[in-house]
Amino acid sequence: MTFPVVGMVGGGQLARMTHEAGIPLGIRFKLLSDTPQDSAAQVVSDVVIGDYRDLATLRAFARGCDVITFDHEHVPVEHLRALEADGIPVRPGPAALVHAQDKGVMRARLGELGVPCPRNRIVADPADVTAFAAEGDGYPVILKTVRGGYDGKGVWVVRTEAEAAPPFAAGVPVLAEEKVDFVRELAANVVRSPHGQAVAYPVVESTQVDGVCDTVVAPAPGLGETLAGEAQRLALRIAAELGVVGHLAVELFETADGRVLVNELAMRPHNSGHWTQDGAVTSQFANHVRAVLDLPLGDPRPRARWTVMCNVLGGDYPDMYQAYLHCMARDPQLKIHMYGKDVKPGRKVGHVNTYGDDLAEVTERARHAADYLRGTITE
Amino acid sequence: MTFPVVGMVGGGQLARMTHEAGIPLGIRFKLLSDTPQDSAAQVVSDVVIGDYRDLATLRAFARGCDVITFDHEHVPVEHLRALEADGIPVRPGPAALVHAQDKGVMRARLGELGVPCPRNRIVADPADVTAFAAEGDGYPVILKTVRGGYDGKGVWVVRTEAEAAPPFAAGVPVLAEEKVDFVRELAANVVRSPHGQAVAYPVVESTQVDGVCDTVVAPAPGLGETLAGEAQRLALRIAAELGVVGHLAVELFETADGRVLVNELAMRPHNSGHWTQDGAVTSQFANHVRAVLDLPLGDPRPRARWTVMCNVLGGDYPDMYQAYLHCMARDPQLKIHMYGKDVKPGRKVGHVNTYGDDLAEVTERARHAADYLRGTITE
Repeated sequence: MTFPVVGMVGGGQLARMTHEAGIPLGIRFKLLSDTPQDSAAQVVSDVVIGDYRDLATLRAFARGCDVITFDHEHVPVEHLRALEADGIPVRPGPAALVHAQDKGVMRARLGELGVPCPRNRIVADPADVTAFAAEGDGYPVILKTVRGGYDGKGVWVVRTEAEAAPPFAAGVPVLAEEKVDFVRELAANVVRSPHGQAVAYPVVESTQVDGVCDTVVAPAPGLGETLAGEAQRLALRIAAELGVVGHLAVELFETADGRVLVNELAMRPHNSGHWTQDGAVTSQFANHVRAVLDLPLGDPRPRARWTVMCNVLGGDYPDMYQAYLHCMARDPQLKIHMYGKDVKPGRKVGHVNTYGDDLAEVTERARHAADYLRGTITE
Repeated sequence: MTFPVVGMVGGGQLARMTHEAGIPLGIRFKLLSDTPQDSAAQVVSDVVIGDYRDLATLRAFARGCDVITFDHEHVPVEHLRALEADGIPVRPGPAALVHAQDKGVMRARLGELGVPCPRNRIVADPADVTAFAAEGDGYPVILKTVRGGYDGKGVWVVRTEAEAAPPFAAGVPVLAEEKVDFVRELAANVVRSPHGQAVAYPVVESTQVDGVCDTVVAPAPGLGETLAGEAQRLALRIAAELGVVGHLAVELFETADGRVLVNELAMRPHNSGHWTQDGAVTSQFANHVRAVLDLPLGDPRPRARWTVMCNVLGGDYPDMYQAYLHCMARDPQLKIHMYGKDVKPGRKVGHVNTYGDDLAEVTERARHAADYLRGTITE
């Protein structure tokens, strides 16, 4: 059978889990990976080892792919435009992806669209940060380099003009944002096809620790239907206006006065959607594949009343196998997802999903497994 | 992380789906496949192409594997004993596997254990078949070569002594069995670990067409708790007595007078367990991997009231992609599993799973998709 070939740029865990989801779909999967040891390269048949920053490498990889998609957002947009000019569908395409690569471009566009965001503008130097602060409620202010940040990197909370110097050191434009007094963080995840079909997953609550996603609860507990619907419509509108194809994660702040503000965008499967592997009819990974191939999308509805995801971070055990065995024995319903990565302190090496009717019990099970695998607890 | 390596002998769809289930477990998967085009070889990173009938090939493959398991039951038991003598865990081991390879050995052992089976004995020639018939209710009689049969191959229904000649042509011992007047076929599937932990899946109803599995309904509709429990206990007892490690499928006849008789055994993931991928907390493939690694087993309970699996057989479409697209559009909850195999008439090239609360509706959805993919229906 001549099922299409999906070319995935990047060999991380998102590529690994996308391959897993693509196997039952019968599609062919081709991977461009930095090293043969990368998380996805361990489990994919057709792997090219090479540097995604090199256009010749990308072009050679793209030959024989029916569509190109991504494990990360770091491929230079000029390379993506070159692939498009070669006639290779790139999904999401550069015109969309630039909004996930450059926070300045993203803020400017969302501002034009009237999407609620934290107050923000590009700042020129520390004195300009003080001016930005004075335009609102003063310090503290959030500073972000417009490119290159993730998982808390490239983000600073500054309380004085003196503290505002380091973000400017890299020579990358710096975006200032008001520090939002949020009650919690949410994520509205949607998937959109080239022909415009779109599905919205339930809005989830996401908890970060040290800037890294720690726990996701689906659906967000106590979120009213009105605000949930508003968040979903916002994400669908952003996906359509920006021409996103594939999975779009819209990270949101929920404010004390019952509004949502857009924090970040990610145009790929996202940590806030890992719960869908075991908690939704169709996972974010399966729907991402379906979207980039312009196949009809799968049902995004939840299969359980509550699903909780906790990330497993590297901790005290260089080898987690014994802890993993313990967790399986303790909870036969636990869904463990390991990425095949070497353990380094704080590195995301896997996640666990639990689901059920009782949120406290479901949360405790996921929390326990993640903490036990990390070595934070031993019983 | 030093997670173990599972060596899988055979590159068919069972190996493909076992790899899929092993990815989240973080285990390493190594495949011995006849050709690079085999279903599993398309999706696995570490593939050795070679002939499983050759001991030197098997030995070379087994080096670097922590355990060997199987996509099929055709590896000669003397080779498996040689691997065990080399110190490689083989699961299921040859002492168990011989019962799935040789129907004569299986019937003799089940007889010793007092397991209810159709009346049977090895027959010497057509005249002996007539004698066997006369010992019971006469013709028709089922004849099976003791080795080499599957999916209806190696099985004959004979009505006269003249018809009884062909099975003897191959020079393989022939087993005669009474033709059971069953009301339906069931399967009791269990998974067992080396240390003796075992789990039982709900007993399912299986419908064969032309000797090939067509539809599986989980759980078997209208099956009383008593008979269901009896079937599960029977399967657990067979697994323990025969020393099975991994997934064991016990195919059963349900008789009009409310008994179950053992038809066949399969010691690997089995077509009657494909529903577990979308319908159970832990799939048969994930539990097979957990069992062969002696990891604690996952919960076998169903996630939906009803799950229906229909096989997709090759039919009118050499390329099913357009039909597949149609099926996704018609039913966003449909779970399609394609094997990446070339379409040949009657060949198993995939299956679909559906689940829900209304058995008629769930069955119609699976039936429609399987028939549409095959080309039997066009709307």
